[in-house]
Amino acid sequence: MNADVLPAAGTALARLVARFARIATVGEAGAMLHWDAAAVMPPGGAAARGDQLAVLAGLGHELLVDPAMADDLDAAEATPPADPWAAANLRLMRHAHTRATALPLSLVEAQARANAACETIWRQARRDSDFEAVRPALTEVVRLVRETATALAPALGLSPYDALMDGFQRGIGAADVAPVFDAYERFLADALPAAEARAAAAPPAVPSGPFPAAAQEALCRELSARAGLDYGHARLDRSAHPFCGGTPTDVRITTRYDEADFAGALLGVLHETGHALYERGLPAAWRRQPVGEAAGMAAHESQSLLIEMQACRSDAYLSFLGPRLHAAFGGDAAPYAPDNLARLWRRVARGHIRVDADEMTYPAHVILRFRLEQALIAGDLAVADLPGAWAEGIRALLGLVPPDDARGCLQDIHWYDGAFGYFPSYTLGAMAAAQLMAAARRDVPAVDQALAEGDHAPLLRWLRTHVHGKGSLLGFNDLLREATGRPLDPQDFLTHLRRRYLA
Amino acid sequence: MNADVLPAAGTALARLVARFARIATVGEAGAMLHWDAAAVMPPGGAAARGDQLAVLAGLGHELLVDPAMADDLDAAEATPPADPWAAANLRLMRHAHTRATALPLSLVEAQARANAACETIWRQARRDSDFEAVRPALTEVVRLVRETATALAPALGLSPYDALMDGFQRGIGAADVAPVFDAYERFLADALPAAEARAAAAPPAVPSGPFPAAAQEALCRELSARAGLDYGHARLDRSAHPFCGGTPTDVRITTRYDEADFAGALLGVLHETGHALYERGLPAAWRRQPVGEAAGMAAHESQSLLIEMQACRSDAYLSFLGPRLHAAFGGDAAPYAPDNLARLWRRVARGHIRVDADEMTYPAHVILRFRLEQALIAGDLAVADLPGAWAEGIRALLGLVPPDDARGCLQDIHWYDGAFGYFPSYTLGAMAAAQLMAAARRDVPAVDQALAEGDHAPLLRWLRTHVHGKGSLLGFNDLLREATGRPLDPQDFLTHLRRRYLA
Repeated sequence: MNADVLPAAGTALARLVARFARIATVGEAGAMLHWDAAAVMPPGGAAARGDQLAVLAGLGHELLVDPAMADDLDAAEATPPADPWAAANLRLMRHAHTRATALPLSLVEAQARANAACETIWRQARRDSDFEAVRPALTEVVRLVRETATALAPALGLSPYDALMDGFQRGIGAADVAPVFDAYERFLADALPAAEARAAAAPPAVPSGPFPAAAQEALCRELSARAGLDYGHARLDRSAHPFCGGTPTDVRITTRYDEADFAGALLGVLHETGHALYERGLPAAWRRQPVGEAAGMAAHESQSLLIEMQACRSDAYLSFLGPRLHAAFGGDAAPYAPDNLARLWRRVARGHIRVDADEMTYPAHVILRFRLEQALIAGDLAVADLPGAWAEGIRALLGLVPPDDARGCLQDIHWYDGAFGYFPSYTLGAMAAAQLMAAARRDVPAVDQALAEGDHAPLLRWLRTHVHGKGSLLGFNDLLREATGRPLDPQDFLTHLRRRYLA
Repeated sequence: MNADVLPAAGTALARLVARFARIATVGEAGAMLHWDAAAVMPPGGAAARGDQLAVLAGLGHELLVDPAMADDLDAAEATPPADPWAAANLRLMRHAHTRATALPLSLVEAQARANAACETIWRQARRDSDFEAVRPALTEVVRLVRETATALAPALGLSPYDALMDGFQRGIGAADVAPVFDAYERFLADALPAAEARAAAAPPAVPSGPFPAAAQEALCRELSARAGLDYGHARLDRSAHPFCGGTPTDVRITTRYDEADFAGALLGVLHETGHALYERGLPAAWRRQPVGEAAGMAAHESQSLLIEMQACRSDAYLSFLGPRLHAAFGGDAAPYAPDNLARLWRRVARGHIRVDADEMTYPAHVILRFRLEQALIAGDLAVADLPGAWAEGIRALLGLVPPDDARGCLQDIHWYDGAFGYFPSYTLGAMAAAQLMAAARRDVPAVDQALAEGDHAPLLRWLRTHVHGKGSLLGFNDLLREATGRPLDPQDFLTHLRRRYLA
């Protein structure tokens, strides 16, 4: 922290700040070890790595629930700081402490064990498309998640499901999300057939490879750097599942390369670059304090989707990107024409798999999961009835009938790893990305002109001010309200979809 | 640990085992972060990494000095375990606790700060060959090291200097080392001129490059794997200063490549492979317990030098390696003839720089430092008098006059980073390597026949049994005694040098 935000030495608040910095630093060590495990670790290191991560998580938890922490929180709250950042920081400290102490250690450990066991069984069950094989393990996971939600709810003053959502994204709950999702479902009824018909009417030319991985990697590095990622504080590596990890001054993004098609890696790296830019732009003065962290998973996804979907698939950026791609890969120029790239990378076509979904149908996958997981947590849906409820839901939303559970309720890791309450973040992020991009374009008319030259700087400056630099000062809706004048409002996302896919 | 060595649940010993496992696991996390910093970290991550390592070290220290640990040690020692491994483990727990609690935290922190400050100044002072610039900082480091040694000595029942040595290599002290080193100095008086004359009389042909780094790397990987390193549990990467890090199931070795000369990388990787094989061969049943760790720095260096110097520069191995190198790099075959490689990689020629020294003169560099650091710790030599004492010492040992302090007392980082008592490990390792290799050849006559086919397996099996698998069950001299029938005895090293350089 900078000297001007440091509390007076010897005070309860100063001890809290030091203690949270220590917890965050242990968390940074864990983040680096996670990256290592995914990107470079030899397979033989896996067992020891699991122990290392568990011990670090345990030490961080112990530091958080230390009784001395509770005393210092009480003392600091007796005379809360006047500075709004310091005050928010103290509130977030209390919030973290409340979440950590609301759950008995035995429950935390039981959940961790059940999640790990279920995830392992799920990997095989998905391969075999055998829901019955994982049903008992998932039943146990859900039982413990419900117990956790029930314990968290009164401590946080939230409903059980909202208490789970709060673990991923503070400041928004099911009551905010449900009407937005319902409206989206209504939008989709007409928009989806129209967009699909339009896409089918003008099939794109496909660039022909092979596209050597090394050339793709060099291009990904160049374009992420042009988008603002400083490789003095970042790395780009390969992993089976692309992600953004590391710490704000040492951010690690990964991708994978398919030599037959460069789009996945390139657009994936631009997506992860959005996450990375958020981490890099967090307020340095509040590094390692709760208020200095990203505002949540939906906020994070808004930044990755803003860069990938809003900026890098815009007409402006494609007009820059097309010639650059042709220069990099050679061959026939036609597939790299900006309007062809637009058709290629903006195809709407419903499908069973969430992670393969286009921008318009993706929310339908999330809405399905949001509804089902609420029902599971409320006890209104039994795990045994999940495949049937899934089939019914995806038919209602997208008119599809899953051919098997592997392409149905077994496709995502989240539930099988105990992550309930996370799915809404994807679509909240997509909607927030559109809302923020619209505001940025209003505030900074030069945004698209710069993107047409491959220059993200005007956009990035706006994001630094209105999102990245705010850390966790504000909850999700308040962050959007200050940046755009409104809390979450799906209108900008719908307008974006209409322009891009229906105009 | 395996079930058969686990102490009964709920006992003081069981709590100690769990606590030391936790400490070791935190240490593993730190080891991985050290590797990351040296091998892959972007420069912008350095400051945060320093914090991460400091916090992990602090947490490990806190776990070690916890008063509950002292109570459990007392309780466990009241009824020491009958199993020799468990008994040794308990003694080593006590030893670690004694070392950690003998020093006030203020002294540990002051030493860490002084070391870091001095090391930074030293980097510039070495570039400028300006001892005066670093003299005040080194004076402070030495003052604190003497304070540390004085505090450790009574707790360990050792002399102050031996208490420092004990931090790097248990089970051997200055009184063991001094006569061995004195005898070596006498040996060198005649041997060195003779060996130099012999080397000068038959200059080797030098393979002509360039040798592409990628080809060198592939060869290093192949030959380290053939030497027994399982890349399912290991990585080979690049760093400015080659090292072996990581953990026993995920060992990380590094090197650097000079495209004009492949020998440095190749022999360096074989050296680090020796370290890595030791870590891989430590007793799995005692993983993360003190008795399961390597026996010390001299023991570790014995393993790297045994692979690099004893095995891989042997006539047998060179007869395998020469054709393999020629196949890899092509060009004129003559420089790759085994007898030429022998002349090339076994040249004796005295010089100022320790890290560039050949096998015969290397000990002279260590002997000089061993004597000077003892005098510094005893207070018999003032820091201000170090350059003069250095010049006098290197003249007496090698007949050289340092042209400047950069090639004299400023050349090594060790003292400027507070590492006093470490230097003897290099030469103790070299001597132990010769002693162990002689014993292996006696016990397993097929060792050289296998090396001539590039096969380290018979040698490695012997090392697994007699060194690696022993962990820290024995101190340095006892380890040698059980493996070779004698405590440290320089005769095998002298015999080796006579055969290799004088025969």
